[in-house]
Amino acid sequence: MKNFYMQLALNEAWKYQFLTYPNPAVGCVILDKNEKILSISAHQKAGEAHAELNAIKEALKNLKSEFNFPKKADDLYHFILKNHQNLLKNATAFVTLEPCNHQGKTPPCAKLLAELGFKKVFISVKDENKIASGGAEFLQKQGIEVEFELLCKQGEKLLKPFLKWQKGSFKLFKLALSLNGSAYGKIVSSEESRTYAHQIRSVIDMLVVGGETIRKDRPLLDSRLVKAKAPHVCIMTRKSLESFDKNIPLFSVPKRQIFTQIPKEAKFLMFEGGENFLKNFKDEMDCFLIFQNSKLNTQNNVKISLELTPMYKGFLGSDTYGIYEL
Amino acid sequence: MKNFYMQLALNEAWKYQFLTYPNPAVGCVILDKNEKILSISAHQKAGEAHAELNAIKEALKNLKSEFNFPKKADDLYHFILKNHQNLLKNATAFVTLEPCNHQGKTPPCAKLLAELGFKKVFISVKDENKIASGGAEFLQKQGIEVEFELLCKQGEKLLKPFLKWQKGSFKLFKLALSLNGSAYGKIVSSEESRTYAHQIRSVIDMLVVGGETIRKDRPLLDSRLVKAKAPHVCIMTRKSLESFDKNIPLFSVPKRQIFTQIPKEAKFLMFEGGENFLKNFKDEMDCFLIFQNSKLNTQNNVKISLELTPMYKGFLGSDTYGIYEL
Ligand SMILES: [Zn+2]
Ligand SMILES: [Zn+2]
Repeated sequence: MKNFYMQLALNEAWKYQFLTYPNPAVGCVILDKNEKILSISAHQKAGEAHAELNAIKEALKNLKSEFNFPKKADDLYHFILKNHQNLLKNATAFVTLEPCNHQGKTPPCAKLLAELGFKKVFISVKDENKIASGGAEFLQKQGIEVEFELLCKQGEKLLKPFLKWQKGSFKLFKLALSLNGSAYGKIVSSEESRTYAHQIRSVIDMLVVGGETIRKDRPLLDSRLVKAKAPHVCIMTRKSLESFDKNIPLFSVPKRQIFTQIPKEAKFLMFEGGENFLKNFKDEMDCFLIFQNSKLNTQNNVKISLELTPMYKGFLGSDTYGIYEL
Repeated sequence: MKNFYMQLALNEAWKYQFLTYPNPAVGCVILDKNEKILSISAHQKAGEAHAELNAIKEALKNLKSEFNFPKKADDLYHFILKNHQNLLKNATAFVTLEPCNHQGKTPPCAKLLAELGFKKVFISVKDENKIASGGAEFLQKQGIEVEFELLCKQGEKLLKPFLKWQKGSFKLFKLALSLNGSAYGKIVSSEESRTYAHQIRSVIDMLVVGGETIRKDRPLLDSRLVKAKAPHVCIMTRKSLESFDKNIPLFSVPKRQIFTQIPKEAKFLMFEGGENFLKNFKDEMDCFLIFQNSKLNTQNNVKISLELTPMYKGFLGSDTYGIYEL
């Protein structure tokens, strides 16, 4: 069953892939001393609780519904240290990445697992980040059994975007298709798909779009579905910025900066567009995020020769979505 | 968590959707007295063990690896009755369909759950089949707690194909597409997708194909990937059967019958074809099984106006597949 539990942790982490930027996506499953599942959680957003802290909170809530947890990750950490009542004594954790061992925006997860009396920690991938690593060694010194490399190929796949943006830049192409491959006309993605896309927009450094699309679709390109920060926009165009109609909604978004060349500081870029934009930029992409609805129509399809390798596939309402690499 | 466990049972059952014909697809999850997951199983094939019997076998194997279970469902049932050593005393079962209460090809599952001392049984959908029903009432009379209608909308969706073929006929359209919606040329489905399709071919009453496809593709249309019975074939054609080249491989499959009209006795029919065949028959289909690989190409897409409702989506190797209704 240990692979099953790690797979649950991996799947939960994938739901927040890209959204944890600049942190890695991490999932955590906790079992009680009798191996009953207490929680399946993930790191959801940079600055918020790590996967382990979230999973510990959910596990305690599951055991005692009367806990009144503080919201801020740092407060939550200290509240749990003080109030855990040994409820997680001899529990087991499955974590997709080695628990951190350093004081970042939150205190170290390895210390929390040890203080709460966990008996065993399964880890998919060792943390190679010199600052945060050493968590497993710390756990072992505290007498906690640690097992490494459980589904580690899958754990490594989950970490790929993080490793890319950490070492340089990460380019994601977003495409929405009908079930028969059309990107034209009104491809109505599900509310859930559009929400995920808006969440990504709210964390990226730059949204990259084509001048042609902007003139034709006159988009707003914000993150309204999640009421969050709209991304800065880089318009790929041969014409000057002055040639665009300034009444196109995207130009009126407060605090938005508009670029016509990708600034070097931008580490996480999302490209949004259709067939031509994909043709121009496919070879420099790190990942493709493809939403697909459940409709066939009578429109032409996107025609590009492109063999993708699926990294993850999931469901968002009535849509399917896939995260692919070349 | 109870929804989570029922969802696991439902997902496991969907993996065998269509393959249990003429029986319903059923899944079962068993937890021990401390709520640790012991097994996640399903009914896999008519004549073989029901979901509950399979799940009980897996649970016992999980607890004592030295059990040497007989293969035949009937023998397995009696072996377990005799040798269970109360290992499943106070266990909990999640079953997507009310456990059967009648002696069919195997003895009643309700009796087995009671004899083994299960404490609680969660049921998604009540069995309306008069012959097999009454299982829940039997369990309650034995002092077992029964909870109904857990995720029952999803349980009903799982049962739809069964209810259709039980009451008349069930027509499934199989289509293989590229990620950009092309059905032409060589759509290479994954080995896993083709295996699932061959498994379905081995249980259906009739494979329905178009005359045009047969002349052009010269297919074999058997179940070689699972080394099982090849289906009978109905060729939809305006021409006579004599007009076909008898060297087309499908005509040489032993024991195969060839029809040009669908016989009334055929209850489970699978239609296989491309765009034209889909256009002709889409309105009379009960379900659509659509495989999709991870490649974009430069070929034209299938152009049909068709809004589908997803019933289930899953992964088969690098392919996605969806089971849809109109
Ligand atoms: Zn941490
Ligand atoms: Zn049964």
